[in-house]
Amino acid sequence: MLVYIAGSGAMGCRFGYQISKTNNDVILLDNWENHINAIKENGLTITGDVEETVKLPIMKPTQASQEADLIILFTKAMQLPQMLQDIKAIIGKETKVLCLLNGLGHEDVIRQYIPEHNIIMGVTVWTAGLKGPGHAHLQGVGALNLQSMDKDNQEAGHQVAELLNQANLNATYDDNVLPNIWRKACVNGTMNSLCALLDCTIGELFASEDGLKMVHEIIHEFVSVGQAEGVELNEEEITSYVMDTSVKAAHHYPSMHQDLVQNHRKTEIDFLNGAVNNKGQKQGINTPYCRLITQLIHTKEDVLKIK
Amino acid sequence: MLVYIAGSGAMGCRFGYQISKTNNDVILLDNWENHINAIKENGLTITGDVEETVKLPIMKPTQASQEADLIILFTKAMQLPQMLQDIKAIIGKETKVLCLLNGLGHEDVIRQYIPEHNIIMGVTVWTAGLKGPGHAHLQGVGALNLQSMDKDNQEAGHQVAELLNQANLNATYDDNVLPNIWRKACVNGTMNSLCALLDCTIGELFASEDGLKMVHEIIHEFVSVGQAEGVELNEEEITSYVMDTSVKAAHHYPSMHQDLVQNHRKTEIDFLNGAVNNKGQKQGINTPYCRLITQLIHTKEDVLKIK
Repeated sequence: MLVYIAGSGAMGCRFGYQISKTNNDVILLDNWENHINAIKENGLTITGDVEETVKLPIMKPTQASQEADLIILFTKAMQLPQMLQDIKAIIGKETKVLCLLNGLGHEDVIRQYIPEHNIIMGVTVWTAGLKGPGHAHLQGVGALNLQSMDKDNQEAGHQVAELLNQANLNATYDDNVLPNIWRKACVNGTMNSLCALLDCTIGELFASEDGLKMVHEIIHEFVSVGQAEGVELNEEEITSYVMDTSVKAAHHYPSMHQDLVQNHRKTEIDFLNGAVNNKGQKQGINTPYCRLITQLIHTKEDVLKIK
Repeated sequence: MLVYIAGSGAMGCRFGYQISKTNNDVILLDNWENHINAIKENGLTITGDVEETVKLPIMKPTQASQEADLIILFTKAMQLPQMLQDIKAIIGKETKVLCLLNGLGHEDVIRQYIPEHNIIMGVTVWTAGLKGPGHAHLQGVGALNLQSMDKDNQEAGHQVAELLNQANLNATYDDNVLPNIWRKACVNGTMNSLCALLDCTIGELFASEDGLKMVHEIIHEFVSVGQAEGVELNEEEITSYVMDTSVKAAHHYPSMHQDLVQNHRKTEIDFLNGAVNNKGQKQGINTPYCRLITQLIHTKEDVLKIK
């Protein structure tokens, strides 16, 4: 099969690298000039659990022309519509599209470009880092869950899971993947946004009594809105999961902190707390914590002149 | 008359200095050792609109023993109960107490120490800065409004206004001072807390579309709770006042930014947004913006290990 990685940042490089070890062809797509040039000239350098440099084709999304069997979406959330627009040439009638982006509501965007029976939604706990152009750092083991959006074409999801498992990506076909997607979004909607706002580690946030109060109110809003949308969410279970994650990741600054505070890049807040507030409005549920946090992050983006 | 300034920071020094020019005696009270020593050794240095050094008595609150005719309270909000405790020795049956602190709810604290007929509440737009121990910098002209809390003893308030006017402090007896106190608290509850959280100037906050949305929601909460408490507040008028202030003060970092971000000192959030949330709970009015902002500021205090 011909697999495109649409968005070859840290995670895209991990998936591209691991799939390239199987009996499938991989093409990386990205828009970062230095990254493209480095990989074209020197290959993709992997460090961490393995040390290796691999030759992999990479190009800009608009330059891809060969019809894809599978496209794995790994852009930043706000780049998704542009990416789908840019890769129209490689989307055929049987091209399957797997979305592993963080956040909520991406299926609504993808449906505008891809027929329902080819859409596969997923969520992963794999991690990866970029050390620089053409250099991915991979440590630790992860897993992922995925599901075909079209209940009458679950076969598509099963095929993709099989391919990913050949690449040791520990994929599980999940008959109900949405609760897992919401659960991860809830982790990000609590610790990512609050740590970015307060310029603190996850451990510092959760060590504060007031920090915990905010976490609980945000979880409650996520769960209320998700349940209203028909997603099976258990507030107690999600709270435990968030608390467990906070302990394991206590010393880390989450990715939104890296984006906003460290690199002055636009955040994914509209696909986390902002998405819950928008969905809440449609459902008639007031979500003032998610709304205010979204406004605070956007105001900080404005102050930092991030566009 | 013998006038004590209870809390001789920048504003206390201004009032103490100006009143010392009248036919009244002034004693400064403060707990900052370096400040006390500087004034004892070299006098209080005034720069800005006038340049002068004046000899003024200063001591710790617990060392004051001579019964006061008037005490002007100028502590930080959270230091008020301790100050009132410390100056018990100088509070007589006829000692009038004027409170010019920022924020809401101080009258409830003062009532625990001072009989109602001696309490005078006020609000001022005078400003002042401290350049260092014993050195106040005074620029510009201000004014103040005050009112006796006991409607049957308005004479007390009129007397105090007269004394302050001898000192050119532009005091007006106000038959309804509470709306003015709330209006100033609303200015502080919007720009102070948000600029402290976002580490930005007032102008940067108000230039952001999302920043303005937050400002409007916070004003709405202040007005709803104040009205429920019987304070005559006009949301449109307060909004105009906040907007006007934001234009005049666009290049400034407000005082809570100085406290939290610049000096890592505890903020007065509990007497601004926190007070509105507490009062709102008693009135059955939900004030999620004030509540979340209070929690965010407290969490940031925790992260910075401010006690």
